[in-house]
Amino acid sequence: MSVTDELLTNAERYAADFDRGELPLPPAKGVAVVACMDARLNVYGLFGLAEGDAHVIRNAGGVVTADERRSLAISQRLLGTREIILIHHTDCGMLTFTDDGFKQTIHNEVGIKPDWSAEAFTDLDEDVRQSVGRITSDPFIPHKQSVRGFVYDVKTGRLREVTG
Amino acid sequence: MSVTDELLTNAERYAADFDRGELPLPPAKGVAVVACMDARLNVYGLFGLAEGDAHVIRNAGGVVTADERRSLAISQRLLGTREIILIHHTDCGMLTFTDDGFKQTIHNEVGIKPDWSAEAFTDLDEDVRQSVGRITSDPFIPHKQSVRGFVYDVKTGRLREVTG
Repeated sequence: MSVTDELLTNAERYAADFDRGELPLPPAKGVAVVACMDARLNVYGLFGLAEGDAHVIRNAGGVVTADERRSLAISQRLLGTREIILIHHTDCGMLTFTDDGFKQTIHNEVGIKPDWSAEAFTDLDEDVRQSVGRITSDPFIPHKQSVRGFVYDVKTGRLREVTG
Repeated sequence: MSVTDELLTNAERYAADFDRGELPLPPAKGVAVVACMDARLNVYGLFGLAEGDAHVIRNAGGVVTADERRSLAISQRLLGTREIILIHHTDCGMLTFTDDGFKQTIHNEVGIKPDWSAEAFTDLDEDVRQSVGRITSDPFIPHKQSVRGFVYDVKTGRLREVTG
């Protein structure tokens, strides 16, 4: 049995117990979270979110690229969210390689080089500030009164705000 | 108090109860989930995931753009995942507008047009197939033996596999 099959069995159990009723499309709490895809970062658990509460946008690093700017524009313009929370975390995979090295490895193996930036970084706080800056400087995301960035500690479960 | 402050209070409670210990960086179940950012889609709850189990990648629509291909390449090449699960869902916001219309509205308001495709779609199953196809045709994602796509029903909590 594949892992996918195992997770599908869990999904059947979830559906059997499902009693949320009909929830509205716009997030109840009016917030969008942008976080790293890391398996140890449980956004629903961390923030005590229930189904229907918040948009959750995730990728490798929790960095802000064109796709996160697209998702945030849709989240705010069409679905009414007003606050943005960004989360990077300690022991992140993005700290373990360089863009040049990773892309060269792929180039060597595949014969062509990826058409994307890998978005590796060396300083967590500085990259949170970069991601905040990419949002605040974006002309298509209208609401920027509350764009706050954090580092999550995977050992302690604690969030620390990045300021300055 | 902002919603962000309210969620930070929840996060303090999460940290106070945190007892996961030191979890490894690679996802225990070797799987990456790509899902829509929709607030009603609780990926951890649906699949019974615990901290450390799976990469979770999310954006508006659960569509596959360059950033998801980047994240999946990093997930498989550097962190050992081997299976991919894609999830779209019923009552999706992406079914409620067109790329042209949305971008024209922004153009009218901001004065410039977004540099991204909004990735709206009209047929859920067909867009799941599109997303699967963007992965299987990508040269930089090495493991494609298990790339399966689903539609989640937000009213019933049930997953339906998209085939063909």
